[in-house]
Amino acid sequence: MNIGILSIGNEVVKGRTVNTNASEISKAMIENGHQVKYIVTCMDIPEDICDSLRFLMERSDVIITSGGLGPTVDDLTIRAISECLNVKLVINGDVEQELRKRYGELGLDFTEERKKMAFMPEGAEPIKNLYGTAPGIFMKHNEKLIFSTPGVPREMRGMLAQILKILGKGNLNYISRDMKVFGIMESTIAPLEREIMEKFQNKISIKSHPESMEFKDPVLTIEFYGYATGSDLEREIEDAMDMVRQHVIRLGGRLDEKQKS
Amino acid sequence: MNIGILSIGNEVVKGRTVNTNASEISKAMIENGHQVKYIVTCMDIPEDICDSLRFLMERSDVIITSGGLGPTVDDLTIRAISECLNVKLVINGDVEQELRKRYGELGLDFTEERKKMAFMPEGAEPIKNLYGTAPGIFMKHNEKLIFSTPGVPREMRGMLAQILKILGKGNLNYISRDMKVFGIMESTIAPLEREIMEKFQNKISIKSHPESMEFKDPVLTIEFYGYATGSDLEREIEDAMDMVRQHVIRLGGRLDEKQKS
Repeated sequence: MNIGILSIGNEVVKGRTVNTNASEISKAMIENGHQVKYIVTCMDIPEDICDSLRFLMERSDVIITSGGLGPTVDDLTIRAISECLNVKLVINGDVEQELRKRYGELGLDFTEERKKMAFMPEGAEPIKNLYGTAPGIFMKHNEKLIFSTPGVPREMRGMLAQILKILGKGNLNYISRDMKVFGIMESTIAPLEREIMEKFQNKISIKSHPESMEFKDPVLTIEFYGYATGSDLEREIEDAMDMVRQHVIRLGGRLDEKQKS
Repeated sequence: MNIGILSIGNEVVKGRTVNTNASEISKAMIENGHQVKYIVTCMDIPEDICDSLRFLMERSDVIITSGGLGPTVDDLTIRAISECLNVKLVINGDVEQELRKRYGELGLDFTEERKKMAFMPEGAEPIKNLYGTAPGIFMKHNEKLIFSTPGVPREMRGMLAQILKILGKGNLNYISRDMKVFGIMESTIAPLEREIMEKFQNKISIKSHPESMEFKDPVLTIEFYGYATGSDLEREIEDAMDMVRQHVIRLGGRLDEKQKS
């Protein structure tokens, strides 16, 4: 499945909160055989949420949102999705009962703010919040699957396994290996990277991440990765890495390797 | 100015690299009186870069991209922007001369990969890369300003002051204060948040960030913020915070405050 991620929250747009949620969602999806195409971050404004959702729905099969599910006035995601897709907002009886019970046990009223967390687009199913209060939602709309998770990282994280259970395993086997190279400029290795990618018909991507200055003791982390459908990719990545290793040694550089999946 | 940020790179979409660049760019812009509206992250695919750029150009005055400026085969940002906006890609004589000189001093050939970094859309101006090789670019297109910076954080960071010099100061004075609250649920504080925001006619936003579970020793960081054009906001935020302080104490909660700008 091709996945789009929508991060909702003024704090993320403002840079107050670094968007670790999107990275975690993306990693979890890729490790389970799916692909991620776009990540959009927008403010807590229903029109912006709708705009972003539409952009992603036109480009992906699955949308995973995070942020904006709680009891406060800026938690607008569910309402925004309902209005955007023109689906009625209805109260989910099971969620309402559960929330009413949890607050009731503490002797607290079931206020409008608390009840708000039981509303979801008609036809949507709740996703259990293992580490918080507001449930996530899962819905189908025009052949697209939409999941909404909270913005609090541990609450979002607690929903990933449930989302992956619904999505199932994808058919892509993501393989990634790292190689650290000292003393070779990125621009020196660039032609070989192109050559290798052509040799392997672009099944392997090679990406050099400079970790220092090109002109002064260059250090590169070179990533070799690809999405295998068959069984050859692992060996091909090993071959590609060998070509780079030999080239680096020939040019007088040094190597230091670690594995990254 | 209303700013859109475009983060370009498979490593960001895949979650390998957490998008700290977008946060840093956003913070720098907001601290200088501008507003940030959307952050889009896309892969190193020219069509996706173009798609994202169009989305942002329809919604913002200024676009700041990061990533994809280097010498390697996956550094496609400049070409993608040129093709997307239908602007010819031309070599910048000054940049070419500078790069030729720097590589020449090391006795290195001025290869195609190195020369590539001197190309930019016709009419664009280079932005000096203080900590690396590939220059950034600045261009105007249909009343929009587009800045492109590298993906390597220190190289991007080295361009922020130059970008802000071109943009100038914005007219918004962003003010933000934090208050930490112990022992009060987010759903308990929610009605007061709404009430205060209404009282101040939505000039002040109040956002509670839960740092633990609602039902078990709740801890909230409550952020009070706004964009002032006049001089009243600071005082109004202080008033709003007082209202919350009193409410928290009345309900038996505890306070711990720090300042965040």
